[in-house]
Amino acid sequence: MSIPTAAYSVRLRVRLDNVPGTLGRLCIAVGEAGGNIIGLEGFEAKAAHLDEDLIVNCRDAEHMQVVHDAVHGLDGCEVLEFEDRTFAAHRTGKIRVSSTMQLRDMHDLSMAYTPGVARVCSAIAEDADLAFTHTIKHNSVAVVSDGTAVLGLGDIGPRAAMPVMEGKAQLFKEFGGIDAYPVCLDVPTGDVDAIVETVERIAPGFGGINLEDIAAPHCFEVEERLRASLDIPVFHDDQHGTAVVVLAALENALRLVGKRLPDLRVAILGAGASGTAIAKIMIAAGVGDVVGVDRQGVIHAGRDGLSGGKRWFAEHTNRSGVRGGIGDALRGADVFVGVSGPGLVSVDDIAGMGRDPVVFALANPTPEVLPSEVGHLAAVMATGRSDYPNQINNVLCFPGIFRGALDAHASTITEGMKVAAARAIADCVDENELRPAHVIPSALDRRVGSAVGRAVATAAAADGVSRIRSSTGGVTISR
Amino acid sequence: MSIPTAAYSVRLRVRLDNVPGTLGRLCIAVGEAGGNIIGLEGFEAKAAHLDEDLIVNCRDAEHMQVVHDAVHGLDGCEVLEFEDRTFAAHRTGKIRVSSTMQLRDMHDLSMAYTPGVARVCSAIAEDADLAFTHTIKHNSVAVVSDGTAVLGLGDIGPRAAMPVMEGKAQLFKEFGGIDAYPVCLDVPTGDVDAIVETVERIAPGFGGINLEDIAAPHCFEVEERLRASLDIPVFHDDQHGTAVVVLAALENALRLVGKRLPDLRVAILGAGASGTAIAKIMIAAGVGDVVGVDRQGVIHAGRDGLSGGKRWFAEHTNRSGVRGGIGDALRGADVFVGVSGPGLVSVDDIAGMGRDPVVFALANPTPEVLPSEVGHLAAVMATGRSDYPNQINNVLCFPGIFRGALDAHASTITEGMKVAAARAIADCVDENELRPAHVIPSALDRRVGSAVGRAVATAAAADGVSRIRSSTGGVTISR
Repeated sequence: MSIPTAAYSVRLRVRLDNVPGTLGRLCIAVGEAGGNIIGLEGFEAKAAHLDEDLIVNCRDAEHMQVVHDAVHGLDGCEVLEFEDRTFAAHRTGKIRVSSTMQLRDMHDLSMAYTPGVARVCSAIAEDADLAFTHTIKHNSVAVVSDGTAVLGLGDIGPRAAMPVMEGKAQLFKEFGGIDAYPVCLDVPTGDVDAIVETVERIAPGFGGINLEDIAAPHCFEVEERLRASLDIPVFHDDQHGTAVVVLAALENALRLVGKRLPDLRVAILGAGASGTAIAKIMIAAGVGDVVGVDRQGVIHAGRDGLSGGKRWFAEHTNRSGVRGGIGDALRGADVFVGVSGPGLVSVDDIAGMGRDPVVFALANPTPEVLPSEVGHLAAVMATGRSDYPNQINNVLCFPGIFRGALDAHASTITEGMKVAAARAIADCVDENELRPAHVIPSALDRRVGSAVGRAVATAAAADGVSRIRSSTGGVTISR
Repeated sequence: MSIPTAAYSVRLRVRLDNVPGTLGRLCIAVGEAGGNIIGLEGFEAKAAHLDEDLIVNCRDAEHMQVVHDAVHGLDGCEVLEFEDRTFAAHRTGKIRVSSTMQLRDMHDLSMAYTPGVARVCSAIAEDADLAFTHTIKHNSVAVVSDGTAVLGLGDIGPRAAMPVMEGKAQLFKEFGGIDAYPVCLDVPTGDVDAIVETVERIAPGFGGINLEDIAAPHCFEVEERLRASLDIPVFHDDQHGTAVVVLAALENALRLVGKRLPDLRVAILGAGASGTAIAKIMIAAGVGDVVGVDRQGVIHAGRDGLSGGKRWFAEHTNRSGVRGGIGDALRGADVFVGVSGPGLVSVDDIAGMGRDPVVFALANPTPEVLPSEVGHLAAVMATGRSDYPNQINNVLCFPGIFRGALDAHASTITEGMKVAAARAIADCVDENELRPAHVIPSALDRRVGSAVGRAVATAAAADGVSRIRSSTGGVTISR
């Protein structure tokens, strides 16, 4: 049975009889119905009554109704309001656009808009790079999706993808100080040309492009072509965000088990967008051998019908020539990385791994294998979930990597910048905090974004893709 | 000689000897140099010195240097900083994206982002209209330009157009409470297909499309095609914004001169985007006769080589069959509307108009004819400038018209909504305030946006294009 989560959280405004014990009975009733009371607020005494808001996490939509009914039937307790908090949080959308300046009088209007604005336009027309200092291109990222691979929901289209992209924009702001804006594209499914062309056309106003939830294999071509054609950073978060955070967690895990990257054999289950990117960053970081496995089994050069990302796997991984299924790939392996689905790995498969196995079961919302099943076998275990230790969460990467890229006015995001991001994330776990249940910082750790940003900006300069220059525009005054 | 303007405003941080008379001498020096001191702030006493900021409007970039030098050379006065305020206001761009909610803990993350967000995505996938209530589509407008006709600057391209679109977004927020975002398109000049296709593709996340600074005649086809293909309001502000405000000013002017729309003859100089839209809204509002004039003279059915908007003029205007130039069109006319350039109308042309002529000389920044030249001949005169009475400013229209359209969930903007907007703008000038120098509200009048919004939403319902419905999404709870 699933556990209560804020995803199914309700706010009940209740009116209680003002006699001792009523709140206690209410809490007992909610608890007996399986609800998790996470907050009590908005207390208002009204003579014979007490009104307040009870915040309760539930298991699912049906359970929300069960909790409601339990409270509703309670003696001395009336339900005044019952609100689905997740839907309430989404009402009218989750981001806003605001102005940086007050428009109090005609003087303000004359600077922000005509006639003053024409001076800035003319300056940019003469020197296009001024757009990076005097327009929102300075700090803006487009969060672009075609809605074809949204979370675990699949191809739900651009309108339905918006809440995710808005959430992403919130995370960009909160953890990277970046002004991100969602752009969900209505294009035929799999029309790579249309996506590429549209992003190229809207690029002038943006300082970076974050590709999101675009299905494999199209996402690979989209990113590759945009990286080639645009002079601003393009980053497919589902691929590289996950890969960077996995590498960060792996580096810290290796410190605990005393192994080195070149000596590792890593089995990756799932050869989609993130599986491919994880394999690539591991090889770039120096991992000895990687074996990729998809639903048909181990990917090797002799397999028929390989294309795109899987052909890449066949050409660059599986040095030891493993054949078979995930169990074969895991036999004696040091690391398991799952980016597939629940139930695709058995306890026996994990038991067959080498000394001090590192297990990253990242399928969401249900991991390939649960910590309760194999936690005792693994030296270090991580999942994609916030309710287990070591959550592999992309939010540790994308705000910081774009922060660094924008600060450096980088023209692209290099492998060096990604590896630097992973190191910076890993370094946010202090030596004395490092332990099997804490190889990766919390997704809410505010230090990570700026630490990653600094490391990435430095790497951008080292890789020669920084375009920092000093120019203020306007009238130059001799002194 | 042009007058000082905030477009060329400087902030001088000066250090003055702390002896009586220094500030006076400074002000005299700035005044003698022709600068307009509009502010004095940031005063700081430092024993033998006083530091403060002097805000000075200048005539142009050269004049800013003159003012600097005048202060710099002054005894007992040192210039510490000298800042071009318009460029300073544009640094890092003029708008920001913010989150509507705090992300304090994993509960907040679980509602705004995974796993909670998936519930809202699924709900929209099942019922696409929920995007209007539970995403930013609720209140967002794309400000779209290809940068081909930016202010008076012409085809300066998408990057250089950004400051104008950002300014527009500021005005949308300030006067309409709307979250607008600039989308500047990198497409080949005049490639209507590319513009239309791109806007169609990015439309899912927006509640409306404001087209801006797209050159005629392409702008007509772009707007027409997008109005046909999209189910959200599409509005080319350069055309209809100006037209609505002109109609508002005209209606109030007629109250002063005691004439009625059906009895009018109106001469319009300039047959581009706004000239055409002004002619159309006037005919829709019931004006008796309109005569259009371009650089080649009066537009009539017998003229060769007419295409696009000009063919429309030939077919729908000039009932009296006028030929010749603007002087001929103005002879005996009631109203002049200029949307062309400076110096194209003579004092004699205006003198030849009928009783109590209404003169709207809207060329920017220099009107076709100045109030100082013909103010004594005109019963009512308006320009596009903020430094003369009766400024025809689009900001009186676009925030309110989109406010009303979004509030009504309108599928389009009808002629009825535009005429309603004009009436509402006109009505913002109270009966007892109405006079020749005040036929139109100030561009800064905060009442206008909401008044226009209410009128437009009502008109949308009357025209059958409103899609208001009540749905909250989430779990429905039986009581």
